[in-house]
Amino acid sequence: MPYVNIQVTKEGGPDGTGPSKEEKAALIKGVTGVLHDVLGKDPAKTFVVIEEVDLDNWGCGGLQVREYRALKAKG
Amino acid sequence: MPYVNIQVTKEGGPDGTGPSKEEKAALIKGVTGVLHDVLGKDPAKTFVVIEEVDLDNWGCGGLQVREYRALKAKG
Amino acid sequence: MPYVNIQVTKEGGPDGTGPSKEEKAALIKGVTGVLHDVLGKDPAKTFVVIEEVDLDNWGCGGLQVREYRALKAKG
Amino acid sequence: MPYVNIQVTKEGGPDGTGPSKEEKAALIKGVTGVLHDVLGKDPAKTFVVIEEVDLDNWGCGGLQVREYRALKAKG
Amino acid sequence: MPYVNIQVTKEGGPDGTGPSKEEKAALIKGVTGVLHDVLGKDPAKTFVVIEEVDLDNWGCGGLQVREYRALKAKG
Amino acid sequence: MPYVNIQVTKEGGPDGTGPSKEEKAALIKGVTGVLHDVLGKDPAKTFVVIEEVDLDNWGCGGLQVREYRALKAKG
Repeated sequence: MPYVNIQVTKEGGPDGTGPSKEEKAALIKGVTGVLHDVLGKDPAKTFVVIEEVDLDNWGCGGLQVREYRALKAKG
Repeated sequence: MPYVNIQVTKEGGPDGTGPSKEEKAALIKGVTGVLHDVLGKDPAKTFVVIEEVDLDNWGCGGLQVREYRALKAKG
Repeated sequence: MPYVNIQVTKEGGPDGTGPSKEEKAALIKGVTGVLHDVLGKDPAKTFVVIEEVDLDNWGCGGLQVREYRALKAKG
Repeated sequence: MPYVNIQVTKEGGPDGTGPSKEEKAALIKGVTGVLHDVLGKDPAKTFVVIEEVDLDNWGCGGLQVREYRALKAKG
Repeated sequence: MPYVNIQVTKEGGPDGTGPSKEEKAALIKGVTGVLHDVLGKDPAKTFVVIEEVDLDNWGCGGLQVREYRALKAKG
Repeated sequence: MPYVNIQVTKEGGPDGTGPSKEEKAALIKGVTGVLHDVLGKDPAKTFVVIEEVDLDNWGCGGLQVREYRALKAKG
């Protein structure tokens, strides 16, 4: 009975504000399938929770995502 | 000094968009009470955080909640 | 289909190394009951996961738990 | 830059005490692949953390896993 | 490659609805710096995720935050 | 009343099996200080929980940490 928590930045998708309903469905299907294929876990007992995180709330390299990417882009 | 994280689907409640303020208060009171009664934990040092998750973002059986329930309803 | 994560310090219980099996069973039963009573959640779709955290790994007041308590005890 | 947390019960695997190193590698590879295929996420910026949870510490149906399964097996 | 999850109540900041973008940037910079200074962790491999929690969804002392503070203020 | 969860790989420290007690104390002190300095949070109401994750259980680049580093080292 696995529990999977997926955190992604809130961007992309059809209007740039995060994954579409179809993309979320594909994430859930895909991850549940991995748990089943690798460990034989029962999909009916597998929970997957997706959390979408605002770009200002995600840090990498000590910077918020936009600033981190801008820095990387400058090389 | 326990920390409890409760994740529920964002539905139900007075307007169908999730638990009411009173229901959340009851969750917090109830769970804090369980920690106190079973392990003697001090309520003043018990944090309870409730996270409400969009139905599209919760998967069970490899499907989003609405699709999972629809499938179950069809038997 | 709620998911509840309970984090407690690894202490107490029959041998001082954390909650006993019976205490954990009581936590699970109690918290599942709260979710059912307050929000009508189906226990068969309620996961409760207990995490026991070493005292050195839990901080409060900027100190590890033992040091925090020692400081409080001195007043 | 996704973060994925996978919680599974500590059982199965080569000696019954949880997934093998190879199974964990397959989980990591599979889940990272799903994030890449569905959302185009860069694997080098995808973290996957697996947590193995003792059977006494996981509840379903208001019971610890072994007791829950025993009840289900009795029908 | 650390992952840090920071949960704070959704209050304060420039308009009372939570930390400002600059405050979040300072949290990310500060926490990433602590991980680097104490454990030598590479900032480019350190993720920090900030979650802002509604006051109704955070419990302490068995009460929601506003009620807890009101009780404390009365002494 | 913030809650901070820090996940690090179980390595380094005095005997190579993870951060020392003193390093954990420094993490707790440092992170609690950041929350206080940036948002004015009360240290007595700030919880910090450190989780140490086995190298086999942490993935990056679709690989377990050791394999990921070996690949990077080869260039």
